[in-house]
Amino acid sequence: MFKAKVLVKRRPSILDPQGMAVEKGAKHLGFNNIRETRIGKYVEFTLDLADRKTAEVELNEYCNKLLINPNLEDFEYTLEEI
Amino acid sequence: MFKAKVLVKRRPSILDPQGMAVEKGAKHLGFNNIRETRIGKYVEFTLDLADRKTAEVELNEYCNKLLINPNLEDFEYTLEEI
Repeated sequence: MFKAKVLVKRRPSILDPQGMAVEKGAKHLGFNNIRETRIGKYVEFTLDLADRKTAEVELNEYCNKLLINPNLEDFEYTLEEI
Repeated sequence: MFKAKVLVKRRPSILDPQGMAVEKGAKHLGFNNIRETRIGKYVEFTLDLADRKTAEVELNEYCNKLLINPNLEDFEYTLEEI
């Protein structure tokens, strides 16, 4: 059994309107030192598999098919045996 | 100047309908080993401040006022000088 923790980020070259909107809100509230806010996703799940190789294959497929938009986003992950 | 990386997670006791929906989709696609998917946010930004203490105060305020829903979510962060 493995615990997967996945960070999903927009590619640096791709605008992040959500981050820009939140940062604009921050400026209105008086936060003047916040820059370059970018908002991605953080996904946790467990993989009920005994073998790390198989778990990595399933993790990558799950991410590419369901969790990320491969046109806009990249992901990185850690996989820890539990 | 500091780089902040923030993970926003729903509290463990609070249902995560988005995670459940994605996992249901996964089952339909034939992923049978994925469990307990929970989806949170990952936020990066820079703080244009020289002092770590001040940066931490501003980070906490920014998170609590704009990035998280304090009724449902917790956050953890790293703050790295750049």
